[in-house]
Amino acid sequence: MFEGNRVIAHTRSRYPIFQSPMTWIARAPLVSAVAAAGGMGLLESSARDLSMTTREFAAIRKATNQPFGVNLPVRYLQSDPKEERAIIDWLLEQGVHFMTTSAGDPGRYVRVLKDAGVIVYHATANLRGALKAVDAGVDGLIVEGAESAGMRNPDEIHSFALLQAVREKVDVPIVAAGGIVDGRGMAAAFALGAEGVTMGTRFVASVESPVHINYKNAIVDATITGTILTDNPPRARARGLRTPYALAVAEGSRERLPPGAQLEMLYVNGDVENTSGSAGESAGLIHEIKPVRQIIDDTITGFWREIDRLAALRR
Amino acid sequence: MFEGNRVIAHTRSRYPIFQSPMTWIARAPLVSAVAAAGGMGLLESSARDLSMTTREFAAIRKATNQPFGVNLPVRYLQSDPKEERAIIDWLLEQGVHFMTTSAGDPGRYVRVLKDAGVIVYHATANLRGALKAVDAGVDGLIVEGAESAGMRNPDEIHSFALLQAVREKVDVPIVAAGGIVDGRGMAAAFALGAEGVTMGTRFVASVESPVHINYKNAIVDATITGTILTDNPPRARARGLRTPYALAVAEGSRERLPPGAQLEMLYVNGDVENTSGSAGESAGLIHEIKPVRQIIDDTITGFWREIDRLAALRR
Repeated sequence: MFEGNRVIAHTRSRYPIFQSPMTWIARAPLVSAVAAAGGMGLLESSARDLSMTTREFAAIRKATNQPFGVNLPVRYLQSDPKEERAIIDWLLEQGVHFMTTSAGDPGRYVRVLKDAGVIVYHATANLRGALKAVDAGVDGLIVEGAESAGMRNPDEIHSFALLQAVREKVDVPIVAAGGIVDGRGMAAAFALGAEGVTMGTRFVASVESPVHINYKNAIVDATITGTILTDNPPRARARGLRTPYALAVAEGSRERLPPGAQLEMLYVNGDVENTSGSAGESAGLIHEIKPVRQIIDDTITGFWREIDRLAALRR
Repeated sequence: MFEGNRVIAHTRSRYPIFQSPMTWIARAPLVSAVAAAGGMGLLESSARDLSMTTREFAAIRKATNQPFGVNLPVRYLQSDPKEERAIIDWLLEQGVHFMTTSAGDPGRYVRVLKDAGVIVYHATANLRGALKAVDAGVDGLIVEGAESAGMRNPDEIHSFALLQAVREKVDVPIVAAGGIVDGRGMAAAFALGAEGVTMGTRFVASVESPVHINYKNAIVDATITGTILTDNPPRARARGLRTPYALAVAEGSRERLPPGAQLEMLYVNGDVENTSGSAGESAGLIHEIKPVRQIIDDTITGFWREIDRLAALRR
C-alpha cells in the first residue's frame, strides 16, 4: 500500500501522515508516539534553544527507532542567528534526513540542508509562498488551508480551493493541512492532489499530547462552530477555541493576552475560559481523546474504506 | 455510472451536478443549457414575480425536455406573501418534480411541496440549518461552505470541515457547494460524503451565462486570492471579486452600493471596478469561459479520472 507515494519515499515513515510541529506540544512524548505508530512526527524548535532540541531529540531517539523529522520556523530562529546556526549544525551532525521549514522564507535554509542530503518540505498557507518555496528548491510542500489552527493571514483561502490551486501549479508532493481528522478527510485531500496529510488539532487531543486535560476536553466538546478568528493587528489573526475570552477579544471588550501567555495559562494550568487555545475548524469533528496509535490506525483504516467506497462507484 | 446515486434518483438528471440558482443569472438561457447537458439546472425566483417565473419556465420547457428544478428563497418570497403563494401554486400546477429552498426556514414550504409529491432539497451553510431542514422533512441538502460566493454569515465554516460535520449527523443525500469547478473538486466532495455538487461561479463564467463579458473575464482573470469578504453590518458579509471598489469598502473609505445596484452596473453594463461581483474562492481555479456542456462534460470526465486514480492506490 502507498506504493509510489512520494511523501513516504521522502519521510521513510510507514504512512503519509504528519503531526504538525506545534509549539511546546510537538516534543518527545507526542513526536515519538507518532513516529512509533508509523506517522511522521515533527519536533518543533520554535524556542530557538539548542538544549531543548538536543534533549527532546535524544528522548525521541531513545523511545523509538522509527523515522521522525524536525521543523525549522524561519522567523523564530532567525531572530537569534547564533542559536539558529547552532541548532541547524547540530541537527545536520545527527544525520536528520527530513526537515520542514515554516513561518518565513525557506530559501534561508534550503541550500545548506540540501547540501547535507536532507529532504526539505516547506509549510505554507498560500500559493505565492508555495511557488517561492519550490523555486528555492524544496522537495515538497505542506499546504495549510485557512481553516487550520493558529496564526492566520487575513488573505488566506481554504483547503478546498487552495489545494487545487497549488496542485495545478507545482509538481512536488503536497501534504494537506486543515480540516483533517481522519480517513475521510485524508481521502478528500488525496482527491485534491495531496499525497499526505498533516493533523494538528487532532493530535493535541491525543492521550500523548502534553497539554492540560481541560484543553483536550475543550477540543472534544467544541461544536463545528467552536472556533473563532480573532484579529492580531495589523496583519495577523489567529484561529482558536470560541471561549469567553475569545469572544471578548473579538468584540473589543478585552485586551489580548501577550504572546506566549497561553502556554502557562492553558497548556500547563488548563484555564480554558481565559484563553483561546489554538484549534482548527476540525475541532468540531473530534469527539474523543484517543491514543496516537489509534488516531493513525483509524485514519488509515478509514482512508482505505473511503477509497474503496469511491472505487465502487465505477461498478 | 452513478448507479445508486440518490441525488440522480431525486433529480432525474443524468449527472449529480447542480447549477446554483443565482439571482438574475439562473434564468432560461443558463438553466436550459445546464439541463440539456445533463446537469440539474435550477431556476431562481428571488424577484418574487410570477410573470418572470412563468416566462422563464416556459422558455426552459421550450428549449429542452430534460429535467430542471426551481429554487424558492424563503426570506425573499415571504416578504410578499401574495406573490409567494401565487408562484408556489403555479409551480405545483406545472408538476415541477424537484425544488430547492434557500435563505430561510424550509419548514414554511416543505409540507405543501411534499404533499404535492415534490422532492425538496434545502440549501444551507451551517450544521444547525441542515439539522433543522432534515427535521422539517427535506429529502436532501445542499451544503455550502463559506468559501462560496455571495452573502455569508460571519460564523460559517468551510467546505472541508462542514461537509464532514453534516455527513456525520444526517442520512439524506448531500450536494456540496463551495470551491468546486471540475471533477477534482467533485471527487473530493464525494470523498467527504457528498453525492452531488453545485457550481455557481463556474457557471457565471460560461458562454450561456447572461452577465456582461467583463464580469466573466474578471472571474477568469482572478487569482486564487482574487475574492474578498466585505462586511455588511450587522451580521452579514459577502464574498466577491477583489476589485478597487471592494478594497475601498473593506477599508471603510467607500460606501457600500445599495442592494441590487450591482445588477445594472455589473451584470448589464460590465463595470467591474466599481462593483464586487459575487465570486467564490473557486474563481482562482477558473481559467476560461466555457460552454455549459463543456463544463459539465469536463467535470464528469475529470471526476472519473480522479476516481480511477484513487482506486489505483489500492494496487
